[in-house]
Amino acid sequence: MDVAERLVNAARDGDARAIARLISLIEDADPLLPDVMRLLPSPAKTPYVVGLTGAPGVGKSTTTSALIAHWRGKGARVAVLAVDPSSPFTGGALLGDRVRMQSHATDSAVFIRSMASRGQLGGLAAATPQAIRVLEAAGFDLVLVETVGVGQAEVDIAAAADTTVVLFGPGMGDGVQAAKAGLLEIADILVVNKADREGADDAVRELRRMISMASTRAPGEWRPPVVRAVAVAEGGVGELVEAIEKHRGWLASSGEGGRRRLARAAHDIAVLALAMLTRDLGLRADDPRLAALAARVASGDLDVYAAARAIVSP
Amino acid sequence: MDVAERLVNAARDGDARAIARLISLIEDADPLLPDVMRLLPSPAKTPYVVGLTGAPGVGKSTTTSALIAHWRGKGARVAVLAVDPSSPFTGGALLGDRVRMQSHATDSAVFIRSMASRGQLGGLAAATPQAIRVLEAAGFDLVLVETVGVGQAEVDIAAAADTTVVLFGPGMGDGVQAAKAGLLEIADILVVNKADREGADDAVRELRRMISMASTRAPGEWRPPVVRAVAVAEGGVGELVEAIEKHRGWLASSGEGGRRRLARAAHDIAVLALAMLTRDLGLRADDPRLAALAARVASGDLDVYAAARAIVSP
Repeated sequence: MDVAERLVNAARDGDARAIARLISLIEDADPLLPDVMRLLPSPAKTPYVVGLTGAPGVGKSTTTSALIAHWRGKGARVAVLAVDPSSPFTGGALLGDRVRMQSHATDSAVFIRSMASRGQLGGLAAATPQAIRVLEAAGFDLVLVETVGVGQAEVDIAAAADTTVVLFGPGMGDGVQAAKAGLLEIADILVVNKADREGADDAVRELRRMISMASTRAPGEWRPPVVRAVAVAEGGVGELVEAIEKHRGWLASSGEGGRRRLARAAHDIAVLALAMLTRDLGLRADDPRLAALAARVASGDLDVYAAARAIVSP
Repeated sequence: MDVAERLVNAARDGDARAIARLISLIEDADPLLPDVMRLLPSPAKTPYVVGLTGAPGVGKSTTTSALIAHWRGKGARVAVLAVDPSSPFTGGALLGDRVRMQSHATDSAVFIRSMASRGQLGGLAAATPQAIRVLEAAGFDLVLVETVGVGQAEVDIAAAADTTVVLFGPGMGDGVQAAKAGLLEIADILVVNKADREGADDAVRELRRMISMASTRAPGEWRPPVVRAVAVAEGGVGELVEAIEKHRGWLASSGEGGRRRLARAAHDIAVLALAMLTRDLGLRADDPRLAALAARVASGDLDVYAAARAIVSP
């Protein structure tokens, strides 16, 4: 039995170290990976994937922690992926946060892992669905994917999750800002966190107004609810769970869930195919052919289209 | 004289409509684009590119507006690109904000344009440097690129700008959050905006502490300053301008400016080469070959690596 097979079998039995090791292989785009993915068994049940996103400081981790507590109370096995956008300059997250959410660290039915990509093109967009696939094979009931940020990171989380929860703080700026960031379009559920603070009522009202503007009111359409929460005290978590369960039911009854899983598979394949092409092309900053073309582009001697074409069709 | 040539000549003469039209071609990845980029003249002078980024609500637009006013006062021609992360669901930004910063709208030496990508892979990362290239050919002295968000959007802005300014609000969460978002690594200058509000002193102190931890103290290293600003009243804009000019001087004297321009050209080529490959492969959600593979992956019949490999090496 080779390494990949041993790791996959151990992960399948719920061995946390093996699961963590497989996720490290994914982060590193390890050569073993294609074998690992081929060996992962088709799961008897698919975990439900909930994405949590929002700007820094809105309370994603405390909300995640409250959700873990809730589902653990129901006997579910829960995995958390904390996705840090990595810096291309340091090749990884500046601070490891694997020690976060320590209250759950000793619970063997809870698996918590932060993820970073090592700066390769394709990065976390390619790594996250593969990590979810590993957690699926390991038999988790729920996977929570927590990602910081506004921008591409959310688009990626929305592509990977069944239900996407977007968190806002009470004073995070008006709804126009939220809309500009594209957050409303990816949100299945909106949460105004720290709802005991000043500005929360305004934030709730403004988000409801924006949703009502964006809604097409088509029959059977999902209308994202706005939930008020005070996650640090676990207030409002019951209501959030209820909203998630309701969305889950809608995904199943409307057929949208199946459509999303198909679209997700297509997205995962496309992202991975591009990453393979990138690797095949050797498109790295230290590639001498690319460096020579870059010098000509920087000096104005060659335009960027001609240079890119020279790479693609040498 | 064909369309591309006419547009390029008009843009070169500073015609705002021609410049806007060329940027639309870029957003749409128009087939004319390779011709346009080939025809763009090598500029006599290169504009200085300043990136402004930060979470929604920290005051990027008001800061941008204050910077425009400052540089216009010095007689410089200033262009602004407001980069909205586009939604993959609607194919564009939800709200156009081309009417923003109206106080400068009637000044012909100021060009303001919001940008969205139409959802193609390669998106804004490929489009932004091309738009800067158009503004360069049109003879602007300064280009301000304003982008919302935390995540990939900043990494792209740092790849496109000479000086990257990261804005924080007074109560945006602690330095650990900022570090996690990778913001510190891309910042050449940090601004605590709305510095008249509660929490500003703490934010400044925390950011300074984080920078000092991240610094290697190598001789000649750039140490990002933390500037306090109240952009809505134009307070602190003088200090921000001073920091930008100082960084500009350091880029020139240290040789880092030349290295960055080379790295940027390499990055632009790589992004564009990937976008070309994506188009050549027909990696779109409605591609029947991709859809068939996605159905097999979703049902567990095929793993995502094997599917991606089938796309890359049919």
